[in-house]
Amino acid sequence: MTTAPSPRALDHPARDQIRLEAVLHALSDPVRLRIVRDMAREGAELSCSYFDLPVTKSTTTHHFRVLRESGVIQQVYRGTAKLNALRGDDLDALFPGLLGTVLSAAAAQAARAGGTLPADA
Amino acid sequence: MTTAPSPRALDHPARDQIRLEAVLHALSDPVRLRIVRDMAREGAELSCSYFDLPVTKSTTTHHFRVLRESGVIQQVYRGTAKLNALRGDDLDALFPGLLGTVLSAAAAQAARAGGTLPADA
Repeated sequence: MTTAPSPRALDHPARDQIRLEAVLHALSDPVRLRIVRDMAREGAELSCSYFDLPVTKSTTTHHFRVLRESGVIQQVYRGTAKLNALRGDDLDALFPGLLGTVLSAAAAQAARAGGTLPADA
Repeated sequence: MTTAPSPRALDHPARDQIRLEAVLHALSDPVRLRIVRDMAREGAELSCSYFDLPVTKSTTTHHFRVLRESGVIQQVYRGTAKLNALRGDDLDALFPGLLGTVLSAAAAQAARAGGTLPADA
């Protein structure tokens, strides 16, 4: 059985439609930043259920939509699952080093907090 | 006549109170990003009146307050002028390379737009 993308395709900005301001806004929320850190660490497509977030399901859906509509992540339906992946190649082509620098900054901040932040649970 | 800071000191976060999420939020607005780019280019303390922004005075004041409260800029009264400077040293100490990467990304985006964005007027 194949896992081809379902016809329920979701809207994504093309690479040249991605705006720096929207990317920074997407990354400026603690829950969204945590999602992005998890995705960068795993380096694979992840379903929304992978993420154990301290927010409601509808809020989670909202955060994933902001990440998708800003161009930070790609969401694809495979069967009944919605899978998420970072658009690292697109972001690096547009804004070299930005995603990596933000991820390093987030790691540094978490380390200074002694790993006690919810984002590091 | 000296230009010592007036007693009307404004609240700023200490270096260790600066949060990555707040910095990214501050930089995620086109007008605020333009202010930061102008300040980085000039490399000196600038009064709010230096900036020719396409927004009202009260909106301008709001944007400067967001930049100050997030830790991106320092605002000091000197006589009747409120002078603004980037907190580049603080940001680089906390989040190495972040400000420079965002500024480079903003410049790249502006260049792709052919310099026709309002932010480059």
